[in-house]
Amino acid sequence: MRAVTFQAPGSVAVEERPEPQLSAPDDVIVRVEASGICGSDLHIYHGRVPVEQGFTIGHEFVGTVLAAGTGVERVGVGDRVLGCFHTACATCVACVRGDYHRCRRGRTFGHGSKLGDLQGAQAEQLLVPRANLTLRRVPEGMSADVALFAGDVMGTGYHAVVHAGTRAGDDVAVLGLGPVGLCAVQAARAAGAARVFAIDTVPQRLELARSFGATPVHLTEEEPKRVVREATEGLGVDVVVDAVGDPGPLELAVSLARDAGTVSGIGAYAGRGEVPLGLAWLKGLTIRAGLANVIAHVDRVLALMSAGVLDPSPLVTHHMSLNEAAQAYELYDRREALKIVLAP
Amino acid sequence: MRAVTFQAPGSVAVEERPEPQLSAPDDVIVRVEASGICGSDLHIYHGRVPVEQGFTIGHEFVGTVLAAGTGVERVGVGDRVLGCFHTACATCVACVRGDYHRCRRGRTFGHGSKLGDLQGAQAEQLLVPRANLTLRRVPEGMSADVALFAGDVMGTGYHAVVHAGTRAGDDVAVLGLGPVGLCAVQAARAAGAARVFAIDTVPQRLELARSFGATPVHLTEEEPKRVVREATEGLGVDVVVDAVGDPGPLELAVSLARDAGTVSGIGAYAGRGEVPLGLAWLKGLTIRAGLANVIAHVDRVLALMSAGVLDPSPLVTHHMSLNEAAQAYELYDRREALKIVLAP
Amino acid sequence: MRAVTFQAPGSVAVEERPEPQLSAPDDVIVRVEASGICGSDLHIYHGRVPVEQGFTIGHEFVGTVLAAGTGVERVGVGDRVLGCFHTACATCVACVRGDYHRCRRGRTFGHGSKLGDLQGAQAEQLLVPRANLTLRRVPEGMSADVALFAGDVMGTGYHAVVHAGTRAGDDVAVLGLGPVGLCAVQAARAAGAARVFAIDTVPQRLELARSFGATPVHLTEEEPKRVVREATEGLGVDVVVDAVGDPGPLELAVSLARDAGTVSGIGAYAGRGEVPLGLAWLKGLTIRAGLANVIAHVDRVLALMSAGVLDPSPLVTHHMSLNEAAQAYELYDRREALKIVLAP
Amino acid sequence: MRAVTFQAPGSVAVEERPEPQLSAPDDVIVRVEASGICGSDLHIYHGRVPVEQGFTIGHEFVGTVLAAGTGVERVGVGDRVLGCFHTACATCVACVRGDYHRCRRGRTFGHGSKLGDLQGAQAEQLLVPRANLTLRRVPEGMSADVALFAGDVMGTGYHAVVHAGTRAGDDVAVLGLGPVGLCAVQAARAAGAARVFAIDTVPQRLELARSFGATPVHLTEEEPKRVVREATEGLGVDVVVDAVGDPGPLELAVSLARDAGTVSGIGAYAGRGEVPLGLAWLKGLTIRAGLANVIAHVDRVLALMSAGVLDPSPLVTHHMSLNEAAQAYELYDRREALKIVLAP
Repeated sequence: MRAVTFQAPGSVAVEERPEPQLSAPDDVIVRVEASGICGSDLHIYHGRVPVEQGFTIGHEFVGTVLAAGTGVERVGVGDRVLGCFHTACATCVACVRGDYHRCRRGRTFGHGSKLGDLQGAQAEQLLVPRANLTLRRVPEGMSADVALFAGDVMGTGYHAVVHAGTRAGDDVAVLGLGPVGLCAVQAARAAGAARVFAIDTVPQRLELARSFGATPVHLTEEEPKRVVREATEGLGVDVVVDAVGDPGPLELAVSLARDAGTVSGIGAYAGRGEVPLGLAWLKGLTIRAGLANVIAHVDRVLALMSAGVLDPSPLVTHHMSLNEAAQAYELYDRREALKIVLAP
Repeated sequence: MRAVTFQAPGSVAVEERPEPQLSAPDDVIVRVEASGICGSDLHIYHGRVPVEQGFTIGHEFVGTVLAAGTGVERVGVGDRVLGCFHTACATCVACVRGDYHRCRRGRTFGHGSKLGDLQGAQAEQLLVPRANLTLRRVPEGMSADVALFAGDVMGTGYHAVVHAGTRAGDDVAVLGLGPVGLCAVQAARAAGAARVFAIDTVPQRLELARSFGATPVHLTEEEPKRVVREATEGLGVDVVVDAVGDPGPLELAVSLARDAGTVSGIGAYAGRGEVPLGLAWLKGLTIRAGLANVIAHVDRVLALMSAGVLDPSPLVTHHMSLNEAAQAYELYDRREALKIVLAP
Repeated sequence: MRAVTFQAPGSVAVEERPEPQLSAPDDVIVRVEASGICGSDLHIYHGRVPVEQGFTIGHEFVGTVLAAGTGVERVGVGDRVLGCFHTACATCVACVRGDYHRCRRGRTFGHGSKLGDLQGAQAEQLLVPRANLTLRRVPEGMSADVALFAGDVMGTGYHAVVHAGTRAGDDVAVLGLGPVGLCAVQAARAAGAARVFAIDTVPQRLELARSFGATPVHLTEEEPKRVVREATEGLGVDVVVDAVGDPGPLELAVSLARDAGTVSGIGAYAGRGEVPLGLAWLKGLTIRAGLANVIAHVDRVLALMSAGVLDPSPLVTHHMSLNEAAQAYELYDRREALKIVLAP
Repeated sequence: MRAVTFQAPGSVAVEERPEPQLSAPDDVIVRVEASGICGSDLHIYHGRVPVEQGFTIGHEFVGTVLAAGTGVERVGVGDRVLGCFHTACATCVACVRGDYHRCRRGRTFGHGSKLGDLQGAQAEQLLVPRANLTLRRVPEGMSADVALFAGDVMGTGYHAVVHAGTRAGDDVAVLGLGPVGLCAVQAARAAGAARVFAIDTVPQRLELARSFGATPVHLTEEEPKRVVREATEGLGVDVVVDAVGDPGPLELAVSLARDAGTVSGIGAYAGRGEVPLGLAWLKGLTIRAGLANVIAHVDRVLALMSAGVLDPSPLVTHHMSLNEAAQAYELYDRREALKIVLAP
């Protein structure tokens, strides 16, 4: 079968690979209908996340169950399914608490041997281990463009908002309107945010955020801190989603947060960072960092997508063929796309 | 000044009453612009809640601050304000935990001497004690029809949903589509309910619920349990709001709830009731009962109203003059109105 | 091997049974070192919970892993282990939310075909399916008398207290001082209850509760409501654990609870019950009912047992041989024992 | 009356001051029986927190109500009372959410004009504004040495643990065994911590922590990270309390925390700090910073003190007279005392 493989920093290829085979009883083989290119794929593309040459990449997918092991209980052959970006064992000390994103045996699709040695989804077929936990049937009538967000980008936006304890009637700010930030805008509205201040520098992204119900604020042409202060009687917002990460607008995030509010750092941090700890302490803030627990959220995210409350389809800017993967990555790398969907 | 007073079961009158005077430093006098007639006023009207003859009734209001004591810090003379249906001391053992609805010194407007001896809001002027806790400025441009719901009926609908722990993506059922039930439908959508099943027997109310985004289910012409089961793959809903109360559809509520779900009994229960405890136990349900904590919610409810996410104005079926109070109560008692707003 | 089997209401026997065999990859065979007789075994013994004749009963156990399937990841052959009273799949809609007690594929040990057709633990050997989720290594130096409480009775007492949201500094009342009630007393102290009022009629049980740090209150010779009111300045307690269940002291429980408090109904309810709903509504109570989620709690319960904070060993009143099972059940049925431990 | 006043960095004096007078209806005058010297008094003493010359300092107190305004509802003249270190209005946007520590009109005792211009408690008499919210009667038989911790240092230790979401059975580490850290050790045990790792360099403090049930770990002579890892099967602890603050062991705190755990930064941070954000992100940590919300906790803390579960009296190393204040501050500054209690 054909698969998109990492070759070297800045280079991917479409190569022929053996079809995956069932080995464990809870394995599933999925014939991929659509896969997405995601911001974290760029980390691989740039060589910042080291992946072996020839490793198949990609971790967002929708497809059909081709084969299922004897222990697979939640889906069956022929089902149209979507998946999460990583697997989890469901029974380790982390999973048993519901912290699936911290599973001690978790494996991430398409991220090389260091993150679990699990071939990726930008391919014609995909092996999904421990499929009972992470695969879901695609709800009737849902497009692949919508469904492939559930277990990755939209699940991450949902996590950023819900994990921060957003309550109906709260005000939220979202810093960074890439796909995750834009999904967080939708999730914030879905979770009852009265107002969402959506902050970025790219006019088209600000406009998308506005169409999702947010108040767009240009990071440099306006003064986000002043805008938020004025709109909130000087209080600031209950929740700030930092969807940028390193080197990160943590400074701005802390300044926008209301006393006793929460900063939800969903964008990846690395290494060490200087943080305005004094201000965070004075305000009594909570800072939550880390990868999203998409497995815990996927059922609720799907329900909201089915109801049309969450609809990431406006984020899909390009549909391309798997064979065009090289061009797709170049285009994505030039930041000309929000989400590219590849069809085999 | 004129005021609507209770005379006898089935009889109210508009009488002349002395204007209220400031006595404590945190008192406020409000010149009433609009007051509402509420389902609990009917309990008084029918004599089920005993109120002294000549006592001014009503507990929903919007108006303007005429006078304020020296300790009033949150509003000033001339401010257009709305209030909550009861007062609380802010410092007793209940209030300090945020349980303002269980304040040991709480007083309810217009409910006679037993509930705090506080004259009601269906009058030209109103004394509001402990005004710092319960009065809020009406947001710019908000109509009285919307604002007078914040501290009573919409606050109650919000409480029913939020106190039950509804999470974005949950399914909710609302039993009984009177004003509280319809507000609960809106609040459920605001809090991220993927689907809301709205159950009643009155076609117009079912239609209103549909316009608020719910799936209407006729209590007797359809089979709510079957409808909900089919729509939820047999699971039931995460949260059931019982907005009816005594004698109450607790039986239906328990049957609709999902395993480990919650029944939120916001409709008043009285005396003793037979409950399907065995089924509740098998399902591992949580049942939450009691009056809403509207003071705790009023800021978030107002924020959602300002944002247009919550909009109770379609519930206002009648605008009448204070002088027409007798006819208004008769009309309300015949269940021909959802919400009547009285203007002095 | 020998096993204790149900014969008829009031009759159990020790019979020869075939040794269990591994069939699924996450199966484990345990050589039983000790098993307990529990209150729910009495429901079987009395025929209230129907179990097939010849079915092996018992669901509390400690033992050694004799054999393990290829998919067993958390324990190995030779490990000394304890288990939970039921299995769960870890991946269904209930489990993925952490509601293991509501698993749609859950099976209870020793409760007949209706509850999963899983042979019981009062035997020389035991098959444990889906062992990754429910087996734990016994901490170094922990006696069987302690360890076999972790996944059943102590887990249930812990659940009753923690699921009710008990916070450090709260007051708690426990109604019914059988093994679950006494474990709830310990768990309440462990969770920071400032005071625990332990209510029963049996002097020895009241005395045990006192030794665990509770204030014993005789149900009929004292007036629990008056005692609690006087001790709490009329407030009542934050949490009431009903460890009796049907026909149940729900009346007393509601009367002891503080405004906005919680009643935790851990004792089994069946059928329909009359509940003082009016009082519950006035107080704004939360009532939580249902079986304990012991799988979710077992790691924390074990940690507290290892630390000596929880110590159920005083509840073990009898050690008997598996061969004496008939006498053991008679003795237990006469309420002469709190906990009987059987050794093969 | 006599009062301890700030004179200049490194210098305090006992001066004659006018007796306080009631002005607002919810004012109380307390005749001070005992006041404490606290770590934050040292910030004033060193000039890091600027206070006017001649300003009376101190914010921990026990005493008797000498006079009370007409609006005082919770205590009366003659009552023996304790207080919190700051006041709050109970009704602003922060207070109505229960965030009393972020009150927009809050005033701190003895911290100069910038923090509310409220004279301090190291004096013969003290004016307590808004007394309904913060004063409590001292429980029968409780010594001043215990009671004056409730609204300050023990409330802070309790907050550090409880605000972090510690659950019964969790493991906790406390960094820094000054009075706050030692109180956090007690609070952690009270809240059900299975194990508390108490980390410092001072042998006496480590020994005190051991006597409170903790596992003492010497910061430099042992390797805290290795010790904690070995004891927790490599997992780390659920909650790390940083009771040191600036420049702070946030590095160590993050390294000790378990995946998805919480770091509770109760020690004051100032300015900007370098934080191991990458590791915090990888682990999915929550970091909570800020002053304790002692008003929210004081009733539960008092209940635990009354029950003997929390007992800070071993922390009182010195009893001195108000007249000896200068020597007391010198002694405290030399770190020869944990807690000095001054009696007028």
